Amino acid sequence: MSKVTVIGSGNVGTAVATVAAKGGAHVQILGRDHEKASALASQVGGTAGAVGDPITGDIVVLAVPYTALAELAESYGAQFDGKVLVDVTNPVDGATFDGLTVPADSSAAAELQALVPGAKVLKAFNTNFAGTLASGQVGDVPTTVLVAGDDADAKQALVDVVKAGGVEAAAIGSLKRARELEAFAFLQMTLAVQEVVGWGGGFALRK
Amino acid sequence: MSKVTVIGSGNVGTAVATVAAKGGAHVQILGRDHEKASALASQVGGTAGAVGDPITGDIVVLAVPYTALAELAESYGAQFDGKVLVDVTNPVDGATFDGLTVPADSSAAAELQALVPGAKVLKAFNTNFAGTLASGQVGDVPTTVLVAGDDADAKQALVDVVKAGGVEAAAIGSLKRARELEAFAFLQMTLAVQEVVGWGGGFALRK
Repeated sequence: MSKVTVIGSGNVGTAVATVAAKGGAHVQILGRDHEKASALASQVGGTAGAVGDPITGDIVVLAVPYTALAELAESYGAQFDGKVLVDVTNPVDGATFDGLTVPADSSAAAELQALVPGAKVLKAFNTNFAGTLASGQVGDVPTTVLVAGDDADAKQALVDVVKAGGVEAAAIGSLKRARELEAFAFLQMTLAVQEVVGWGGGFALRK
Repeated sequence: MSKVTVIGSGNVGTAVATVAAKGGAHVQILGRDHEKASALASQVGGTAGAVGDPITGDIVVLAVPYTALAELAESYGAQFDGKVLVDVTNPVDGATFDGLTVPADSSAAAELQALVPGAKVLKAFNTNFAGTLASGQVGDVPTTVLVAGDDADAKQALVDVVKAGGVEAAAIGSLKRARELEAFAFLQMTLAVQEVVGWGGGFALRK
């Protein structure tokens, strides 16, 4: 049985926790908003706690905004060592909506890995609008979760959890590909903001 | 009646010329390989010439590899002024297949625009594998051509040509977005190389 900890109980955290629980994983929710975290935990048959509580999962999904990553890395520190640590963030420049705030040759995931060198950092879920993860559909076709990372076993573990939850997933390359995944997700967000697509649409992977 | 010049008669040039002709555009093919250019021109009911010949189109699609852009910009120079100039390239590092050769904060399209400031440069077709452009399908769903550029009329003109040819198209943002389009296309190529998808698949836009 997989053990998944989701830090954050917003739209993305809720969608990830729901998929993981549907696949039979034990889910721990750690949230700043105790009521919301408890409600989500009870919804997915898991346990709830506060951010900063000990982590029970082997896979830890940081379902928080980019700006919260550094603080989490600092507060958990070596407790992340050996964990599969999943970065879902898109560091979009909110002031201009015309680019990302990470250096052009880097990524949020690469920055996180540098902060917690003992963790097996993955980039995943960032290319999926939360609604498409929850519904399992991008418009009229199935959602696929793209997973990048340097540790093949860690990638496979996450792919297995997502697939068990009924959503397609694919391991797609090293953590360097997080740069392209973040560019891809930003592009997709600009399309939704311009109403070229809805937030239930976007890019779907077809074979 | 739109007038489209396609420079290059490879897979991408052939697919673009075929779509444009299907939509009723007059198509001029300029190619280094005279026989191939003539065959393609006769296939699409257009005219053929050599690279360096005068351009008859208002929309000029540079269906050449990234490495050929600078030479074309130099040889045509001011003849590109006022033209809608379409960059289709993906400057993938062929030695490592682990990134692009353009600076991380730039794009092939931005470099082309700098070389030919009088042209209305668009980025388009680079996110479409040639086979998906030719068939109009990404796997089981319709292909969409994404068009980025700073000139709204130029973008609309290309969108109209593509749509007239029976393929979906969307104007999606300024030429700055070429950076994300190139990252997106590189990511998609890595998926095909890893056989996660076939060259008839990839990312499809759903509303």
